Amino acid sequence: MKKIHFNEVVTRDGFQIEPNFIATDEKIRLIDALSQCGYAKIEVTSFTSPKAIPMLRDAEEVMGRIQRVPGVEYTVLVPNLRGAERALESKADELNLVMSTSETHNLANLRMTREKSVASLSDVIRFVDGQVPINVSLSTSFGCPLEGVVLQSVVEEFSQRFVDLGVRGLTICDTTGMANPMQVAKMAQALSQRFSHLQLTFHFHNTRGMGLANILAALQNGIDRFDGSLGGLGGCPYAPGASGNISSEDSIHMLQAMGFDTGIDLPRLLAIARELPSIVGHDVPGQMIKAGLPLDLHPIPADVDELRNLDR
Amino acid sequence: MKKIHFNEVVTRDGFQIEPNFIATDEKIRLIDALSQCGYAKIEVTSFTSPKAIPMLRDAEEVMGRIQRVPGVEYTVLVPNLRGAERALESKADELNLVMSTSETHNLANLRMTREKSVASLSDVIRFVDGQVPINVSLSTSFGCPLEGVVLQSVVEEFSQRFVDLGVRGLTICDTTGMANPMQVAKMAQALSQRFSHLQLTFHFHNTRGMGLANILAALQNGIDRFDGSLGGLGGCPYAPGASGNISSEDSIHMLQAMGFDTGIDLPRLLAIARELPSIVGHDVPGQMIKAGLPLDLHPIPADVDELRNLDR
Repeated sequence: MKKIHFNEVVTRDGFQIEPNFIATDEKIRLIDALSQCGYAKIEVTSFTSPKAIPMLRDAEEVMGRIQRVPGVEYTVLVPNLRGAERALESKADELNLVMSTSETHNLANLRMTREKSVASLSDVIRFVDGQVPINVSLSTSFGCPLEGVVLQSVVEEFSQRFVDLGVRGLTICDTTGMANPMQVAKMAQALSQRFSHLQLTFHFHNTRGMGLANILAALQNGIDRFDGSLGGLGGCPYAPGASGNISSEDSIHMLQAMGFDTGIDLPRLLAIARELPSIVGHDVPGQMIKAGLPLDLHPIPADVDELRNLDR
Repeated sequence: MKKIHFNEVVTRDGFQIEPNFIATDEKIRLIDALSQCGYAKIEVTSFTSPKAIPMLRDAEEVMGRIQRVPGVEYTVLVPNLRGAERALESKADELNLVMSTSETHNLANLRMTREKSVASLSDVIRFVDGQVPINVSLSTSFGCPLEGVVLQSVVEEFSQRFVDLGVRGLTICDTTGMANPMQVAKMAQALSQRFSHLQLTFHFHNTRGMGLANILAALQNGIDRFDGSLGGLGGCPYAPGASGNISSEDSIHMLQAMGFDTGIDLPRLLAIARELPSIVGHDVPGQMIKAGLPLDLHPIPADVDELRNLDR
């Protein structure tokens, strides 16, 4: 049973595009419940400007009030130096920095060129100076909704630059669900060979229905760390109505059904996922909370035994 | 580019659980449009009792009025001898017989034991006597929602019995979306080795989100024929609210993105799929009609070029 490390991103990546503010108490209650499920890592929040992402304006309070469970890493998204200061003050276990591998997406999303992003994130890495491990998330690594194709060589090049700066991990993100399993297999093989000492996480979206197929392709090519969002919350403004992040519970169910050790208490996780629609006020894309576990059997119709005997 | 044979089942498997009757003209219009897309096969309808499935009470009229396109096989579901007579009269290209590999599901669904089903389908095969090819669909081959586990050896055993009766093909059905990719890989490998001369089709549901991952696992283990339902219509009464059959367009998009030759005109198919919600009167689970093709790029925000230049 190979060990899989799962990172839950629902309260950051999932919540940040929700239109209605989710109360701080509700976020803390959810994170505390998720902490009991056996995740390797939880991305709690983001230390961005409260103006840019009002949903996560309570980052300090959330980080201060959650009950930390030993064995779970509590990571936070950090866009710049100011965010890094706040994250260190809040005693985050890891800082997750982010930029896009597509120039146009980086300009549209982060308001600067990729080179400026690299320079700015390098400043953050030097500032943190090994106090906590650094992860860098590379957005649009399998394609950009504005620019189109993103070459694997470009992803490898940005990966190398951050590896040279001493990061512990990289997250290769399919930000808008453009990746297909063949592409994922090639990327996973190349990166896991080139950066075998690194924590390599793959981050998929189910925008075009390929999320779990992409997990399978990554698994088969050396990747054992995945991001997921409870209920499949999250997504991106470029595909309104389509699914967002892969659903954690659907992904974890598949991994466990295949015999992998995720360390996660799936029935407990499903119970939490079932509360999500009432927290966010709408239906969520995850399938497992609708379908249930395969071996949650349905009652046998009353007349079946009669038929069974008649036929003997 | 390996060739993949795709079988569209929306007007039979997809429509049969829709609550509101879909007009005969509408069905014919849809099948005629699908015939222009390059499918290997279309499962048009079912010659069951009009009382059992009122939606398909127009089977004769539909089969009589569709415009058949050379190269596309028009298959029909046939439950018994009477159905076979009607199917032959309607000049179906293939008869698709069905039974469950789970005793309890067969009793609940077909009102007889599996042994009675084998006997009844054997009668049909003898009656048809090679006039048209026969396919047998084995339901619940990856698990039964009433009974639980279905052993691969049981599926192999029923497969062998129909192979001995001279069928051209077998469809291995994951009727309620219980299959996982590891299980699919084992089943695909065993069956494609044991019955290498046979047309082996795998039929998946996306009930627990694993549909496209299961296609990938089957592909990697010798399977090159798949069923799918436009829009992901269809499903099963045991998982209300969950997704049904895998979406044809999502599956075909993945296969093409991976470099397989499906023979299908995907943009044309997507245009047809987009009409489906208005035909059935509700939203459908397929993702591609919401997300669009990955290279249907989004407009670049107006200020990006300004930022790009500023930064130089």
